Amino acid sequence: MLQKDSGSNARLGKATTGHGEFLTPAFMPVGTQATIKSLSPKDLKEVGAEIIASNTYHLYLRPSQEVIGKLGGLHKFMGWGYPILTDSGGFQVFSLAALRKITEEGVYFQSHINGSRHFISPEKSIAIQEVLGSDIMMCFDECIPYPVSYDYTLNSVEMTGRWAERGKKAKGSGDSGLFGIIQGGMFGDLREKSAESILKIGFDGYAIGGISVGETKPMMCEMIMRVLPFLPEDRPRYLMGVGTPEDLVKYTGLGFDMFDCVLPTRNARNGMLFTSKGKIVIKNAQYINDDSPVDETCQCYTCKNFSRGYLRHLLIANEILSPRLNTIHNLTYYFTLIKEMRGAIEEDRFSEFRKNFYELRGENFKTGIINKHSQGGDFND
Amino acid sequence: MLQKDSGSNARLGKATTGHGEFLTPAFMPVGTQATIKSLSPKDLKEVGAEIIASNTYHLYLRPSQEVIGKLGGLHKFMGWGYPILTDSGGFQVFSLAALRKITEEGVYFQSHINGSRHFISPEKSIAIQEVLGSDIMMCFDECIPYPVSYDYTLNSVEMTGRWAERGKKAKGSGDSGLFGIIQGGMFGDLREKSAESILKIGFDGYAIGGISVGETKPMMCEMIMRVLPFLPEDRPRYLMGVGTPEDLVKYTGLGFDMFDCVLPTRNARNGMLFTSKGKIVIKNAQYINDDSPVDETCQCYTCKNFSRGYLRHLLIANEILSPRLNTIHNLTYYFTLIKEMRGAIEEDRFSEFRKNFYELRGENFKTGIINKHSQGGDFND
Repeated sequence: MLQKDSGSNARLGKATTGHGEFLTPAFMPVGTQATIKSLSPKDLKEVGAEIIASNTYHLYLRPSQEVIGKLGGLHKFMGWGYPILTDSGGFQVFSLAALRKITEEGVYFQSHINGSRHFISPEKSIAIQEVLGSDIMMCFDECIPYPVSYDYTLNSVEMTGRWAERGKKAKGSGDSGLFGIIQGGMFGDLREKSAESILKIGFDGYAIGGISVGETKPMMCEMIMRVLPFLPEDRPRYLMGVGTPEDLVKYTGLGFDMFDCVLPTRNARNGMLFTSKGKIVIKNAQYINDDSPVDETCQCYTCKNFSRGYLRHLLIANEILSPRLNTIHNLTYYFTLIKEMRGAIEEDRFSEFRKNFYELRGENFKTGIINKHSQGGDFND
Repeated sequence: MLQKDSGSNARLGKATTGHGEFLTPAFMPVGTQATIKSLSPKDLKEVGAEIIASNTYHLYLRPSQEVIGKLGGLHKFMGWGYPILTDSGGFQVFSLAALRKITEEGVYFQSHINGSRHFISPEKSIAIQEVLGSDIMMCFDECIPYPVSYDYTLNSVEMTGRWAERGKKAKGSGDSGLFGIIQGGMFGDLREKSAESILKIGFDGYAIGGISVGETKPMMCEMIMRVLPFLPEDRPRYLMGVGTPEDLVKYTGLGFDMFDCVLPTRNARNGMLFTSKGKIVIKNAQYINDDSPVDETCQCYTCKNFSRGYLRHLLIANEILSPRLNTIHNLTYYFTLIKEMRGAIEEDRFSEFRKNFYELRGENFKTGIINKHSQGGDFND
């Protein structure tokens, strides 16, 4: 940790990986299939990304870790020489795969692409992530749906704990980091139980998983707050699948450091753009003759060169340039926010920043509930 | 004209427009819907484009010339500050529109997008192109299909001549250039007749249209050679819808200056990539573990940063980055060829260059027949 805000729990940190450092709070765009949809690595760097997230499940199925390994590892494969976090595949196995069968040993499942049969265990998940060359690996965990019974959740939490232990043992001597994931569904005591078991094993960082899966925002917050006291000050805290700009500000203020979400990229492809005055739906007829940029205050390539009218045209005409220009804008919005938060922490004025952030945006800025699959990417991310 | 090769009819020229100069021989990528599919204007400039072609028919239907006019004209709309040539809409009206009715006055037709009813005349075509702010406008012409009868072609050629005259009269005092289009189907004497009538009217440049519409390559060449003697030395000669790299070398050597074709961009999206050793189909299984670039000799962003294995993965995974990286490569291939031809003319060694070009490539380099709609763009371009 570099610095802590005195008026909140926000922290400024720096993490070091085999592919360089990144600052926290950090937002990780999701590159499910070894590409942040529509962007080149050059675009990504230009919008301000420092670390990205990618998906073990998707890359294992296509093109496979063997292929990526032969082509020099994930960094070289996708042309991104900076930090990469890979999720364990847990979330996708449970949300995307067909006909899965969960055993203590691991999970048998069928590919969502072609129905082929596969098996992933905690050890295999680590092995795949190591072949990919991940900088930060995640432990294989069971991601339960919402809602689910107390008893099921209890058993799941216990198994996820045993899996985490196996994952840690399976990790080789490489310089990748390994994060543990705390589960527990929507039961506060099971969240605490999970936190205790994961913390006892000891990891390079701690993630809260199984949130943003369809529950209400207050419920999500309650679960997070039950876990927070267990998380040590000196390790990165990662809130998986979160979230909206409001979420980022809120949970940074509560002491979280890392976030990933498909919201800015997926919304971009659907034409929902973030601005300093609220979101806009670029497809709307009101923008047909609008010669202003998406956001007058934005410095991105899209805003510096194109009008809302042109962006609307590209979307309506189903042009390939549309998702790219929109994604450049939305990610620039996110990374501008991240930089503003870092600056506010550095200058010990985060609580003031947070107050202004919410006041300025008000009701107009609601960005809706993230859908069930937004955590860690799904078919479309 | 700046220079003429002594061993061929190849010429090096410079054309001046309201948005700057461009050198000839020139290749114009086709930006049907006010975007070269998948590329930003920055990408376009980086691959070496100096002038692009766009489509009156498509822009008239969507978003309409009124909208583009309100947003500052086509250059500002699409963020391209360099020369733009617009076709007249003739080719698209005849190849895409439904239920068209041709009269001496103009053409009644229904939109291929939504069936709405429209009318374009030679005067209206010019008016639309002027609102778009085109640097080089094309006369509205009847593009006949192949094959078609002699009598039909004769009448069509005569009407296209009258339409060209009306187009020239309709042109305002702006600094846009206006090119006449020579038609005549696959009848040599009608090609000559058309050339005579268009030349008599007098234009800033002369185009041969109605070629590359499904006829054989020798037939296409025969028609072009019938027209060539009519084309004055001091005006640009534009071969519409042409063509393959071999075509560009061949017709540059015969004295043509301007070309447009969807081949490099459309093939890119289908994964057919041009290389100095022939074309490759990147989807093929042989590239799955291939860590070499598309072309070792190529200096484009794609070849400098990504392997064939990655490009194959992006295509198979249906990723948006795939068409862009492929298009960057194919257009770089085309513009590298254009630059090599210019250099060869400048150094008075074009015939030697041409000989080497064909010898090096040989049989491996056949790129197939351009399909019927490749001229000037269709639904997909």
